[in-house]
Amino acid sequence: MSMSKKLAAECLGTFWLVLGGCGSAVLAAAFPDVGIGLLGVSLAFGLTVLTMAFAIGHISGCHLNPAVSFGLWSGGRFSSAELLPYIVAQVIGAVAGAAVLYVIASGQAGFDAGAGFAANGYGAHSPGGYSLVAALVTEVVMTFMFLIIILGATDQRAPQGLAPIAIGLALTLIHLISIPVTNTSVNPARSTGVALFQGDWAISQLWLFWLAPIVGAILAGVVYRWLGDSTEH
Amino acid sequence: MSMSKKLAAECLGTFWLVLGGCGSAVLAAAFPDVGIGLLGVSLAFGLTVLTMAFAIGHISGCHLNPAVSFGLWSGGRFSSAELLPYIVAQVIGAVAGAAVLYVIASGQAGFDAGAGFAANGYGAHSPGGYSLVAALVTEVVMTFMFLIIILGATDQRAPQGLAPIAIGLALTLIHLISIPVTNTSVNPARSTGVALFQGDWAISQLWLFWLAPIVGAILAGVVYRWLGDSTEH
Amino acid sequence: MSMSKKLAAECLGTFWLVLGGCGSAVLAAAFPDVGIGLLGVSLAFGLTVLTMAFAIGHISGCHLNPAVSFGLWSGGRFSSAELLPYIVAQVIGAVAGAAVLYVIASGQAGFDAGAGFAANGYGAHSPGGYSLVAALVTEVVMTFMFLIIILGATDQRAPQGLAPIAIGLALTLIHLISIPVTNTSVNPARSTGVALFQGDWAISQLWLFWLAPIVGAILAGVVYRWLGDSTEH
Amino acid sequence: MSMSKKLAAECLGTFWLVLGGCGSAVLAAAFPDVGIGLLGVSLAFGLTVLTMAFAIGHISGCHLNPAVSFGLWSGGRFSSAELLPYIVAQVIGAVAGAAVLYVIASGQAGFDAGAGFAANGYGAHSPGGYSLVAALVTEVVMTFMFLIIILGATDQRAPQGLAPIAIGLALTLIHLISIPVTNTSVNPARSTGVALFQGDWAISQLWLFWLAPIVGAILAGVVYRWLGDSTEH
Repeated sequence: MSMSKKLAAECLGTFWLVLGGCGSAVLAAAFPDVGIGLLGVSLAFGLTVLTMAFAIGHISGCHLNPAVSFGLWSGGRFSSAELLPYIVAQVIGAVAGAAVLYVIASGQAGFDAGAGFAANGYGAHSPGGYSLVAALVTEVVMTFMFLIIILGATDQRAPQGLAPIAIGLALTLIHLISIPVTNTSVNPARSTGVALFQGDWAISQLWLFWLAPIVGAILAGVVYRWLGDSTEH
Repeated sequence: MSMSKKLAAECLGTFWLVLGGCGSAVLAAAFPDVGIGLLGVSLAFGLTVLTMAFAIGHISGCHLNPAVSFGLWSGGRFSSAELLPYIVAQVIGAVAGAAVLYVIASGQAGFDAGAGFAANGYGAHSPGGYSLVAALVTEVVMTFMFLIIILGATDQRAPQGLAPIAIGLALTLIHLISIPVTNTSVNPARSTGVALFQGDWAISQLWLFWLAPIVGAILAGVVYRWLGDSTEH
Repeated sequence: MSMSKKLAAECLGTFWLVLGGCGSAVLAAAFPDVGIGLLGVSLAFGLTVLTMAFAIGHISGCHLNPAVSFGLWSGGRFSSAELLPYIVAQVIGAVAGAAVLYVIASGQAGFDAGAGFAANGYGAHSPGGYSLVAALVTEVVMTFMFLIIILGATDQRAPQGLAPIAIGLALTLIHLISIPVTNTSVNPARSTGVALFQGDWAISQLWLFWLAPIVGAILAGVVYRWLGDSTEH
Repeated sequence: MSMSKKLAAECLGTFWLVLGGCGSAVLAAAFPDVGIGLLGVSLAFGLTVLTMAFAIGHISGCHLNPAVSFGLWSGGRFSSAELLPYIVAQVIGAVAGAAVLYVIASGQAGFDAGAGFAANGYGAHSPGGYSLVAALVTEVVMTFMFLIIILGATDQRAPQGLAPIAIGLALTLIHLISIPVTNTSVNPARSTGVALFQGDWAISQLWLFWLAPIVGAILAGVVYRWLGDSTEH
């Protein structure tokens, strides 16, 4: 595919990840009596990736996440030249997704994006009041495992065609564990998109959600290079 | 397959979509203490499509939705000649599904279809009180993304045989996001089937649930024609 | 496979369906504060079939249900000679599953199988108080659709190898819709297994949960013979 | 693959099973208002196995559980020589997963591992107060069925490539049934990892969660050797 189509696909896919994942959190998680809760939000985040991986995997590889692009690069599966353009496209898509969510959410009386807007945070802004250290460990380890799963499930020796299911449900699992700690990022673009609309503490805490996922992802690339190498003696 | 079998399959499949999706909402969503909530309803809608796509995909293509037929036509995958018959069959199936649901639901004392019957609405009849603009944006964007996923997951280069999973779970995801806004349509036949039994405001608001999904779907067809075209220079 | 292994597989599989499905209902559905609810029970029933279809599909075909055996027979996929032995094996497995569940459940102080034990019922014994007519329509239509999905998903033209997912999730969907009406049977063996331990009204209402599922299944076999026949002119 | 890579994969996978499964229970199950409940925890445990089976199945076979290793050995699929090293690697991974979970969980004010830490128990330490006999029967039968599904789904005649889905969702199903009874083990390594941090009753009850799963698993190996053997006369 041409680079412009790859970038359009990454932009559209990350748009869907933020609109779908953060949208389910903002619009439906705490709906009175029948709300979908953290379980529904976890499922929604995973399904954005599962559906787009089937839809655009053959176009751009469906990263939808700067940490994923870094991890695939570190694992020897993605070129340095494409890294920056992919990340820019992802951030643009994430901001667009957050913008459309803002338009929809503000169609309800009493809406206030400053109250959270599914932004990621630690300490006083962690959903469960978890410390900075807990948040840092969580984001590094969760992204590390996310990339191990991505690299393993797309290995030539893994069952073919099913990686979208493995990877999407991995993101669901990660949310099932860690929403209480950081509201779950493992994705700097997703964090950036909604932070701009939260507009206050989410921006000042954004550094952690760029740093930790990328560190975890790069580490996973290094580890899987050794773990998955069957030619070594 | 012969046209009569295709139409019978579309009719039966849309019958199942309405009976299963709207049925779970009417019968089980708010069951005391152990009700399935919006998460269960979202899963039910998606599973009607997932199950029928495996069951009748090889007969009719399993559209079950006039917007899907329009989107596939716009994307160059479906003939103009079949568009109208498919839509008629889908609407007949949807009305039949709503009728059987009415028979079952009215077997409980105190049942009143006028109270909602899983119909779609905006403004005063949006589950969360969302405005007409929010409803319109939601239905256009959700149907647009639904068709992008359908067109991408059934692309020759996508993993073969798994499109029913991608498409069914896409409908689950769309419900996880947007039930609070419009009760989620993205399907004019589904909206029509239950509106006839709600019988009041659902009929007067029905125009939006034909207009918005079809607009979103046609747009997606145009976009995917460009995005998924690997032969272009 | 030899007939004895086929029957052992059907017996073991139906044991699992009752222990897993009814077990989740009896043990976990209404657990204080964090119970799995009707959504969890629906998932559990479906997963018993999904897991066993992968595990023993290649041994016995994994019917686990007299209505399924009747429907496959009516659809021309199963021999008359095997019908009765399969049904006997299924009922034995279902009773064994209910017995093991009884042993486990009675390990909690205050347990009383007479209070329900996940048995199926209508009228005063319908979970939501639905009438006999509603129950009858529900069981016929749900089993009819279950068999349409089974016959379609195992059709040679459907994606190969994925029928266990389609069929298991179809059973989940059926439960998401109809637990409030009849506690969902669509399976005479499952109804019989737990009715013996409920020991009172469940036995006197058992006739409906043999009659309705088998009628719905036989009808589906006839319909799919026409619908799925691509050789007809 | 070399033995060191196999053991590293087993260690990493069991780390993920404990961090993900027990982590979802400790961090998110009872989160106020929107907690994921036992349904979310059940899904999380299953998804740890599903995701790792896709990621490392081609490296180590992805047992992640001493009972699974024993069952595969008993079923003639795993060598005696690898049994002990695999179990050691699994226990190390489980303890590491529990340690990282401890670091994260203790980042919240008021955390007390002694209050439970997702450890397994019976009698006074069963979540629902179930007796030792109920716990023993539950763990033997659940692990027996888990291994039947594993051996069947990885049989050459089962659909290829889909065993990770069957096996992961089997673990979800087992949790949907049995969390109230024993908090669900079926895995001695998982029980050991968190028992060390609970540090009191969980250690004195640990014997049952080694004995029962391994007995159930060995039995299943014997049964499937007969059930799945199509060459016998």
